[in-house]
Amino acid sequence: MKIGFVGLGNMGAAIAANLVKARHEVLVWNRSAAKAKPLTDAGAVLAASPKAAAAGREAVITMLADDAALESVVSGDDGILAGLDQGALHISMSTIAVATAEGLAAQHRAHGQRFLCAPVFGRPEAAAAAKLFIAAAGEPADLKTAKPIFEAISQRVFEVGTTPSLANLVKLCGNFMILSSIEAMAEAMTLAEKGGVAKAKLLEVLTGSLFDAPIYRTYGGILVEERFKPAGFAAPLGLKDMRLAAQSADTLRVPMPLLSLLRDHLLQTIAVEGEEIDWSGIARTVAKNGGL
Amino acid sequence: MKIGFVGLGNMGAAIAANLVKARHEVLVWNRSAAKAKPLTDAGAVLAASPKAAAAGREAVITMLADDAALESVVSGDDGILAGLDQGALHISMSTIAVATAEGLAAQHRAHGQRFLCAPVFGRPEAAAAAKLFIAAAGEPADLKTAKPIFEAISQRVFEVGTTPSLANLVKLCGNFMILSSIEAMAEAMTLAEKGGVAKAKLLEVLTGSLFDAPIYRTYGGILVEERFKPAGFAAPLGLKDMRLAAQSADTLRVPMPLLSLLRDHLLQTIAVEGEEIDWSGIARTVAKNGGL
Amino acid sequence: MKIGFVGLGNMGAAIAANLVKARHEVLVWNRSAAKAKPLTDAGAVLAASPKAAAAGREAVITMLADDAALESVVSGDDGILAGLDQGALHISMSTIAVATAEGLAAQHRAHGQRFLCAPVFGRPEAAAAAKLFIAAAGEPADLKTAKPIFEAISQRVFEVGTTPSLANLVKLCGNFMILSSIEAMAEAMTLAEKGGVAKAKLLEVLTGSLFDAPIYRTYGGILVEERFKPAGFAAPLGLKDMRLAAQSADTLRVPMPLLSLLRDHLLQTIAVEGEEIDWSGIARTVAKNGGL
Amino acid sequence: MKIGFVGLGNMGAAIAANLVKARHEVLVWNRSAAKAKPLTDAGAVLAASPKAAAAGREAVITMLADDAALESVVSGDDGILAGLDQGALHISMSTIAVATAEGLAAQHRAHGQRFLCAPVFGRPEAAAAAKLFIAAAGEPADLKTAKPIFEAISQRVFEVGTTPSLANLVKLCGNFMILSSIEAMAEAMTLAEKGGVAKAKLLEVLTGSLFDAPIYRTYGGILVEERFKPAGFAAPLGLKDMRLAAQSADTLRVPMPLLSLLRDHLLQTIAVEGEEIDWSGIARTVAKNGGL
Repeated sequence: MKIGFVGLGNMGAAIAANLVKARHEVLVWNRSAAKAKPLTDAGAVLAASPKAAAAGREAVITMLADDAALESVVSGDDGILAGLDQGALHISMSTIAVATAEGLAAQHRAHGQRFLCAPVFGRPEAAAAAKLFIAAAGEPADLKTAKPIFEAISQRVFEVGTTPSLANLVKLCGNFMILSSIEAMAEAMTLAEKGGVAKAKLLEVLTGSLFDAPIYRTYGGILVEERFKPAGFAAPLGLKDMRLAAQSADTLRVPMPLLSLLRDHLLQTIAVEGEEIDWSGIARTVAKNGGL
Repeated sequence: MKIGFVGLGNMGAAIAANLVKARHEVLVWNRSAAKAKPLTDAGAVLAASPKAAAAGREAVITMLADDAALESVVSGDDGILAGLDQGALHISMSTIAVATAEGLAAQHRAHGQRFLCAPVFGRPEAAAAAKLFIAAAGEPADLKTAKPIFEAISQRVFEVGTTPSLANLVKLCGNFMILSSIEAMAEAMTLAEKGGVAKAKLLEVLTGSLFDAPIYRTYGGILVEERFKPAGFAAPLGLKDMRLAAQSADTLRVPMPLLSLLRDHLLQTIAVEGEEIDWSGIARTVAKNGGL
Repeated sequence: MKIGFVGLGNMGAAIAANLVKARHEVLVWNRSAAKAKPLTDAGAVLAASPKAAAAGREAVITMLADDAALESVVSGDDGILAGLDQGALHISMSTIAVATAEGLAAQHRAHGQRFLCAPVFGRPEAAAAAKLFIAAAGEPADLKTAKPIFEAISQRVFEVGTTPSLANLVKLCGNFMILSSIEAMAEAMTLAEKGGVAKAKLLEVLTGSLFDAPIYRTYGGILVEERFKPAGFAAPLGLKDMRLAAQSADTLRVPMPLLSLLRDHLLQTIAVEGEEIDWSGIARTVAKNGGL
Repeated sequence: MKIGFVGLGNMGAAIAANLVKARHEVLVWNRSAAKAKPLTDAGAVLAASPKAAAAGREAVITMLADDAALESVVSGDDGILAGLDQGALHISMSTIAVATAEGLAAQHRAHGQRFLCAPVFGRPEAAAAAKLFIAAAGEPADLKTAKPIFEAISQRVFEVGTTPSLANLVKLCGNFMILSSIEAMAEAMTLAEKGGVAKAKLLEVLTGSLFDAPIYRTYGGILVEERFKPAGFAAPLGLKDMRLAAQSADTLRVPMPLLSLLRDHLLQTIAVEGEEIDWSGIARTVAKNGGL
């Protein structure tokens, strides 16, 4: 397939590499072109602008850090809206606000272009191994178009609706669930440790019985070993995601007290530990609050 | 082995049945003797008192509803302390306060008796299938004595320390983790549903990706189908366990804001839905708070 | 003084009326001109646009419902920025975000205009009686210019800094404090009532002893009599203010768990009781959560 | 009146001194008799036991640190129950659990003795100045008997019901309200300070406008000057009171999320700052959580 790819951060670069590997024709663009080097070495072609990366492509994929970065590559004279052919497809993989996705959908519709959202679950290692999980939402025909792309980068795709922004809602719910699990483990581990049971021992019981899931093994290990720096996923990014979830909760009139708690713990973590800590560093905050 | 068994509620009866099945010699006692009928039919012998159930046994097992019920079968002229031989072992399987376990340990020590705590994870079906998980704590020799018993009733034993009460701390941490997961799912499902994604769809994404654990499949299904009555584990019992965890947190000076949230949601659930609802009924409260 | 006044809602109209009464020359503008009738009857002159209301004036006052409404009268061809003379003063009385105030300050500076923020405490009755409290921030010279205006409308002015946006921060803190007091009373009253002490009796003790302040008498009475509709200050407006406070907390990295609680209770109140309820209606939510 | 007085801590000693000053005949008892010296110097007579302090008295007053201390002077061979005449009155001024008060009421009824609860609001200075506020509950005849006592020690008495324990419920509500106010001020001050407004300035605005109450002036000053040590009212005692309130909330099925927050902040404060800090030290915790 002829694919454009915009946004070559840790996640985007790994995804794009798998598309090249799967023998798709990939045009890439990134704000700092240096990041594109490994990809062009592997066969991708560097585009001069987001517009150029989208023009003449069956699909253009975007994977940016936040809503503002995404909007900056979509709008304007050099943007995707200006380049993408009528009937061609924009696949948005960034974790963005539901409202932002709704706005993009309307803009593409107005330009006669197609649009779907397909945010992913998984850290950079999973992206590199083509083992991502994808929450995808859009028209059936659009999802069908995206199928070869999804196959090249993921282990499983969940189709969650025909309105693209619903995929973002699911993604935000997922990130909320992850951080909730971290909070729960952090509180339990702090109680256990002050009471005389080592964190590792508690984790062994949990993952050996009812909590035998990747999330507990991965983050449980991080909590036991206190591997909060360097950040795999920095606390300010986690805070951004929780803020996006809270914006939807606000709009939809849904009180989410656990979400509120997570935001407050992220704020404390950033205020006290600095902006460079991993979002799972809320566990350090929980431990310190208990006097550890 | 010669075993006494005190407390034949849903859990106790299922455990005792597996001990009989494994050809241990089991003396049983229950406040209402009628509950013992299926067990005596299967080969157990009815004892006239907790004291009688303990006398002459290598080990006596207790499985009671709460701290007060346990203390009532341990103390007094007809109690286990009065009946258990010197050097014989009391295995406490109830979910009780850490402080209560510490008190019992001291009393048994003063009587020259042995004591260990071995609370279990699993609902009555798991108990019946001998598939419980056991968190056990006590002296190595005592754990060794208990081994044939554990083998007859569980799929796995976690030894968490030599001080018996530590097993209760781990058990309370586990129950806290379970209810935390329910709260997280409930908030995410309410947000998703108000935003246009069915609860079942969200659950499919979660359990199909990072949350592929028994706890999410079991309770996720309950939440999707809203099977809150009849209660598998009633909200007031859940509240009791959260209160016991909070007592330890209080004593150990550990703030646990997520635990506080769970307690408040249990209180609201009981206040509004009644005492008969399952503890996972906090999900109904979360949904109602969002206007569903 | 020659004054322009933009925004004639309940608060703005009452303030403008006091300025007319104090014999200032007042040009008024409001989106729906009908609201200006009582003022023009009293001697004010109707302007054709925000620009016209600002042109040739020593000071123009704005009192709008939210940040967007304020920005719409400031910007554009018909806006205040386009009309206000060099060296003339814009006094912003709206409750707006700190960031919005910072942006306005920069814009006025770029236009050679002066700017200060002076949000007010008090409900419409207090505005009508010229009994408002004003939190004002700006350059000393600008505050001096505003003095005759403040004297005509308030009982007391607090100067909180030289950076205009600080007044907005103080205002948001104040509104947070008010709603915090309501939450505290609501929880205490629910506990008391379920325990057998009437809400009115508890309030009598509080206001008769340590809580002898206007805020407890005013809102305490509303809570006792459950006068939540019609709204004096609607819950969605209260939610907006709490959101603005949370934005500052987010930017400044300050966890505010009580603020989070208030937002969640406002969301529940709006979700369950509707958008028309007073912000003190969180007390109804608290009572219902307790089964009342 | 012939009065017995049991419990001569800071509060009790000051109250008893005012009774002596008002020319009542006062028998005093305290666990450590040394504390009675200033009182016996002033004309009180030392009793050999709580029983002796109660025998032959029209009324005996108790002012102890907690439920256990109160129960220890009431029960047993040397206790008040054993000494108090039939028809004589026990006035309980301690801050105790509602359930404890109910138990005491039943015991006195069984002994043909009268009982009322009259916990007080005010710090030791207010007690010394006979400026306490009293929340009193009991039978009208009993309240009438207590009137001369109340007149000698307080500035105002609130009669809150005929069931004695209701006074304790009101007292716990009051303490909850006080700590809620401290929490609200602490969060607002932290936000203001990080944003550039000094704590003292914010307090000036609050107490100068809507929050013109003793509680804000007193505790606001403590927060501004960070006078947390030595403790006027130690955090562990505050935690005890919040725990008693939570026990009533638990029994009455009332979720109180703000109370939960206060408990968690007290726990963090004690865990991090030590047991010696004033309960208003939660403000230090709030500030530190914000990185100050």
